[in-house]
Amino acid sequence: MLTPSFDSKSKVPLYEQLYRFLRQEIESGGLAADERLPSKRSLAMDARLSVVTVETAYSQLVAEGYIRSENRRGFFVQKAAARPEQSAAVPPQPAPLPEVRQTECRYDFATNAVDAEFFPFSTWAKLTRAVLSRKDSTLLSAAHPQGVPELRQAIVNHLYHFRGIRVQPEQVVVGAGSEYLISLVVQLLGREGSYAVEDPGYPKTEQILSHNGANVLPIPVDQQGLRVDLLEPSGARVVHVTPSHHFPLSLVMPVSRRSALLDWAAEQPDRYIIEDDYDSEFRLSGRPIPALQGMDRQERVIYLNTFTKSLAPSMRISYMVLPPKLARRYQKEFFFYSSTVPSFEQYTLALFMEHGHLERHIWRTRRRYKARRDALLEAAKREGLTEFATFTGGDAGLHLLLQVHRTASEEQLEQAAAEKSIQVYSLSRFYRSGQSSFDEPCFLMGYARLQENNIPDAVHRLVLAWK
Amino acid sequence: MLTPSFDSKSKVPLYEQLYRFLRQEIESGGLAADERLPSKRSLAMDARLSVVTVETAYSQLVAEGYIRSENRRGFFVQKAAARPEQSAAVPPQPAPLPEVRQTECRYDFATNAVDAEFFPFSTWAKLTRAVLSRKDSTLLSAAHPQGVPELRQAIVNHLYHFRGIRVQPEQVVVGAGSEYLISLVVQLLGREGSYAVEDPGYPKTEQILSHNGANVLPIPVDQQGLRVDLLEPSGARVVHVTPSHHFPLSLVMPVSRRSALLDWAAEQPDRYIIEDDYDSEFRLSGRPIPALQGMDRQERVIYLNTFTKSLAPSMRISYMVLPPKLARRYQKEFFFYSSTVPSFEQYTLALFMEHGHLERHIWRTRRRYKARRDALLEAAKREGLTEFATFTGGDAGLHLLLQVHRTASEEQLEQAAAEKSIQVYSLSRFYRSGQSSFDEPCFLMGYARLQENNIPDAVHRLVLAWK
Repeated sequence: MLTPSFDSKSKVPLYEQLYRFLRQEIESGGLAADERLPSKRSLAMDARLSVVTVETAYSQLVAEGYIRSENRRGFFVQKAAARPEQSAAVPPQPAPLPEVRQTECRYDFATNAVDAEFFPFSTWAKLTRAVLSRKDSTLLSAAHPQGVPELRQAIVNHLYHFRGIRVQPEQVVVGAGSEYLISLVVQLLGREGSYAVEDPGYPKTEQILSHNGANVLPIPVDQQGLRVDLLEPSGARVVHVTPSHHFPLSLVMPVSRRSALLDWAAEQPDRYIIEDDYDSEFRLSGRPIPALQGMDRQERVIYLNTFTKSLAPSMRISYMVLPPKLARRYQKEFFFYSSTVPSFEQYTLALFMEHGHLERHIWRTRRRYKARRDALLEAAKREGLTEFATFTGGDAGLHLLLQVHRTASEEQLEQAAAEKSIQVYSLSRFYRSGQSSFDEPCFLMGYARLQENNIPDAVHRLVLAWK
Repeated sequence: MLTPSFDSKSKVPLYEQLYRFLRQEIESGGLAADERLPSKRSLAMDARLSVVTVETAYSQLVAEGYIRSENRRGFFVQKAAARPEQSAAVPPQPAPLPEVRQTECRYDFATNAVDAEFFPFSTWAKLTRAVLSRKDSTLLSAAHPQGVPELRQAIVNHLYHFRGIRVQPEQVVVGAGSEYLISLVVQLLGREGSYAVEDPGYPKTEQILSHNGANVLPIPVDQQGLRVDLLEPSGARVVHVTPSHHFPLSLVMPVSRRSALLDWAAEQPDRYIIEDDYDSEFRLSGRPIPALQGMDRQERVIYLNTFTKSLAPSMRISYMVLPPKLARRYQKEFFFYSSTVPSFEQYTLALFMEHGHLERHIWRTRRRYKARRDALLEAAKREGLTEFATFTGGDAGLHLLLQVHRTASEEQLEQAAAEKSIQVYSLSRFYRSGQSSFDEPCFLMGYARLQENNIPDAVHRLVLAWK
């Protein structure tokens, strides 16, 4: 072995330089398997290093398995330690992956939008500060697997006041978004049988279910919501529904259909209903539609809701309410799962709710969104859009359905709108078949992100595009 | 139908009182299916309410499907709307579920602990404030599905400096904890074939994999880590390993075994290695052990790491590094998944890392943990524990293995320690068989949560318990 020379001025410590040199020698085969290394003392002398430096380098090589130390006999190169030097090798270069693209249109009728200006930043910051200033270990040690008790209690109160349903904190499971909670539901209910989903419906639901190994079964939706009469013959065991505000058709499932759905579930011991109540807080007139969960007497409804809509999409906090029987099973078999939401966020949100900020925030945003919806309907009339198009489903949730009385295809109209810098979303894309059941072109019109003063211009452009 | 009387002084609005009354009448059958309701005008007169009030109540009942309006003929009770009144009914009361229990012992040698006092609260609070004060919509709109670019870049830099591996931000996926990321890996690699895990190993790994529908195969571990020679015959397709610091045996997988592992994966196109690098930052002497990922030339290693250990267990932020090929597939098939970590946290952590706080924090905590480990070893010698017990694996990670030269069973020793108010954790519980492969009782000794000045007392008690 050549005696290496080292640079004592380099930022790389001497032991590190020696370590790298020796590793290189071994990996390249310059030092063969079972070859004996110079004693620490002699190498220190030759290389003008301290014995401690050599010792440190040697013990690192021992730790990584490049050399072994044998009692009184010294250090030897390990077998099979030869390997192409990695730090020198060029790592595989992935093709730069596309970022998520945003629409370039001036006005976007997206349904998953929220308006930043509504978010109570200063309040949230104040509460975050309050939480962090506590500096106690409960903030840092792993949170309760179902979510911190304060937050679960706040959710229970919220559900009672906003949705009129009474549940226990022990039934609540807080999680990092509804998508994550749905995967937990699959783990909890198992992968046997099929999971029925609404067709048309929220495409992610099907994707999440099947990625989690569930067999998905699309069931048609009529004017009353999911066709419960088709559930029995379909052989589905679990069904995912949005009774308070069907996505995308913006329908409310009437009480008779709800009863039929609950009766279907009651017929077999292992049938369950996943009620996704994703934007029930945003019913814009009258009182909120009652949750299906409140009608459940058989412990068959798993209630799912999120703060993504009511606070911000970036706020990955959702929760589910398990029927008592399932909640007990969850505690037995799923308690090893750590809570997926940072405790800071959980405590902050709990305070936010306890102090009534969420309630106020929802009232405020609801009023603002209502103003936007009204502005949209008004402009539609004034600009003459309603002369050849009809809005429906405006009371629940943050989008309407626009039916255009034109013979053109949805693609053509979407394209025409885009040319006027308006992004609209055709209804057909939410159908399994890719073809909406309406005989006229329909579009989902989300208005949450549109500024009131822009709405007339947006509608004017639509009229120009489709006239 | 009796004409109801209403209390205009009640906090419940009049329309709500009327709505509840009518719903009750319908659900109880007092108003039969297809029965006609009084006209708004006449009901308003009889009940001394404004027509608007009646209108509001009627339209709510229509929205919920209790009644229907027929052109010019008025309002009629819907079929199948009768239902036992829910608000009155008693909701099912789940038995209060047990909270996660904490040990009552004075000293706890838990391995999953972290010391709150180390966490830089004020810095974190300052950065959170800075992030929130930006008040821009990027904070609120859904984050990039793989995590915000700033954080992924910070992670790439961190990996280069701390682990000597070079990756691209496009390969990084940020998620709410390693448990969640492992479920993503199963979705990405599929459920065919088996997933090999280390035996002994981290019990959660097996639970998470099987809950996600993967078939789990325990593979024995020897002094060099997972028995790679047993992988081939086992028929496993994927393997989960902790090469930098085996849990619980606290071993480092030598380079020869690493090469063998990579060679095993290279033999078949769909074989993958999940490298769980959970506490590599806490190697207490010498430089960190290189990551297996750095040796991977075949795109077979999925690198997994977390900030749970380096920052706080309540900080649910982990990340994985996908080989370029898998990263591209992830973008094709998994891009619909929302990021599971709140953007506030992601931006805060990104700043925390960019400003070098994480690096400083790791240096500081490592120094402190090292002091605690040394105090433990010192006390062990001074108190005479080392006369009948041996510590191993002290350089990597935050726990040591304690081998007790006694004929007693681990249960007996654990019990004896508990009587002196010391919580220790037997090694056997981490074996599939429930029986450790050592012929002497062994314990995992996590010292992260123990205060230095308490350690002598803790060790003294152990000696008293086991002498």
